[in-house]
Amino acid sequence: MAREKAVAIVGATGAVGREFLSVIDKLDFPVKNIRLLASARSAGSRVPFRGENLVVEELTEKSFQGIDIALYSAGSSITKKYAHATNEAGAVIVDNSSAYRMTDGVPLVIPEINPEDAKSHTGIIANPNCSTIIMLMAVYPVMQKFPVKRIIASTYQAASGAGWAAMEELKNSTRAVLSGEDFTPELMPYPYGFNLFSHNTDIDESGYSEEERKMIRESKKILHNEKIKISATCIRVPILRAHSEAINIEFSGERPSVAECRELISAFPGVQLIDDREQNHFPMPIEASENYNCLVGRIRHDVSNDSAVELFVAGDQLLKGAALNAVQIAALL
Amino acid sequence: MAREKAVAIVGATGAVGREFLSVIDKLDFPVKNIRLLASARSAGSRVPFRGENLVVEELTEKSFQGIDIALYSAGSSITKKYAHATNEAGAVIVDNSSAYRMTDGVPLVIPEINPEDAKSHTGIIANPNCSTIIMLMAVYPVMQKFPVKRIIASTYQAASGAGWAAMEELKNSTRAVLSGEDFTPELMPYPYGFNLFSHNTDIDESGYSEEERKMIRESKKILHNEKIKISATCIRVPILRAHSEAINIEFSGERPSVAECRELISAFPGVQLIDDREQNHFPMPIEASENYNCLVGRIRHDVSNDSAVELFVAGDQLLKGAALNAVQIAALL
Repeated sequence: MAREKAVAIVGATGAVGREFLSVIDKLDFPVKNIRLLASARSAGSRVPFRGENLVVEELTEKSFQGIDIALYSAGSSITKKYAHATNEAGAVIVDNSSAYRMTDGVPLVIPEINPEDAKSHTGIIANPNCSTIIMLMAVYPVMQKFPVKRIIASTYQAASGAGWAAMEELKNSTRAVLSGEDFTPELMPYPYGFNLFSHNTDIDESGYSEEERKMIRESKKILHNEKIKISATCIRVPILRAHSEAINIEFSGERPSVAECRELISAFPGVQLIDDREQNHFPMPIEASENYNCLVGRIRHDVSNDSAVELFVAGDQLLKGAALNAVQIAALL
Repeated sequence: MAREKAVAIVGATGAVGREFLSVIDKLDFPVKNIRLLASARSAGSRVPFRGENLVVEELTEKSFQGIDIALYSAGSSITKKYAHATNEAGAVIVDNSSAYRMTDGVPLVIPEINPEDAKSHTGIIANPNCSTIIMLMAVYPVMQKFPVKRIIASTYQAASGAGWAAMEELKNSTRAVLSGEDFTPELMPYPYGFNLFSHNTDIDESGYSEEERKMIRESKKILHNEKIKISATCIRVPILRAHSEAINIEFSGERPSVAECRELISAFPGVQLIDDREQNHFPMPIEASENYNCLVGRIRHDVSNDSAVELFVAGDQLLKGAALNAVQIAALL
């Protein structure tokens, strides 16, 4: 039996933080004890876990004594501020922020794809961007056997990627439209109810948003493939917690048949084939939400390119896009 | 001054039908008189127009006496049933359904792109599919000067494409989610509130939906270009009345610079450049709705292909996607 671990959750009251506990419980992750850490504002609040009430403590440099694994989901600046103290205390960090994802020596891991990378860590393992994880969970099962030259993704991203407050803002903005009232967005750059907009991260001189650049560079690192060509368009849609992506995959050699794609996807852990053409049943956020599997379907040969395949994926941004993947990384340790 | 026309609107009480009158008014389309036609159920209702109250009449084969132009938006079966009687009465049909779009001899027209095709009609001119119009309004300004080899589109389609009742169902489904109530969809195959799903038209053996196949074949007809390669993924998102599309354009020769794309798009009628990288301001449904222009932006060189450009468009499905384009066709006559 696996040795039980002392786990700290940093950012315990955020949208992803809240999911860590349920994932630890559901996966039967062997925990000795759990320490919930957050800002001073949230300290003192209580969170139920396996019949106990865990009390949220204020995050300080001294929070990590006796901790084996620290699951971070509190933004890059918090990770950067506390990483050293965490490692000094002997705890390994699994970080959901982008702080160290592209740092040499920091493994960037999707456990179904590159679990062996986790072994080479020196104190920090990075959890990839949510859109990157969900894209690769759809593409990797096929590319294992059929090498891929180019991927073009268009995302349909949920509010949860911007946190708990963004999910609430989406609901409030939607209520305002339904009742004909004005709404002034606070977190999002534009009213979100019945609207969509380009992902609100900075656009650089290439014209790509930071979210799109993450998908491109993180995928190359995870796949150990700098040659693969990737383009992405990241769009926030008025959905609460599951990201979807329309993906065009161009293969280096002959493309797989639809049947081969379906077989490879069905056999891969963490993905579920939802590809019923007769019933028009394909991946959807309502079925991906709170689902541990990423849903993949709409698989078809691209009629515009003899080497390409089109498909569609939906995955829970808070689970496989964040908390689930992070706990799976912790389980590799 | 243009000769005034007697106009009939078939399907006058539908989502597109309701827009015809406002477009006729706003474009100062020269009308002698307007006859509103709908099913027996809607006959007798009154619709205000330029200070008068127009009374909706029941559509019959005798409805078209004295009519010059019949604007149809009542579905393919109604067009097929009444087209002969309409033409026999001497009226030209501008049809918003897909009934005759691909019929030889029936022009399929976007007035900014192929107005000259309208001249060769023999009684019917077809209005293209909404997603097709909005895609080509974004691509054509650039492809006029820089020939295009391949287009890949991912759509973010609004409820209005499925009619007035679908817009109401989206609102009701959304209200149910917000209040934690169950909701049973009637028109849509799945609950629409805070959800998205593949366009609910039939999927054929190619794996493409009918909506996607329309985008492919109609574009080729409008562009008089059977060689152009097109792929599309059509997704319904919880938006009320504007369609958006992420479009990847691969050029036959050298691709235009971003500045050249912007210049060509800015100079083209019916499109408006919304491409402010610093302010993160790009095309959005809330700004495209009730807007006569299609909004185009997110223009950038595709980092995955040296011959390709990525862009994003949003256009009102009921206006340029339907009623506006149809009245513009009528104005060509």
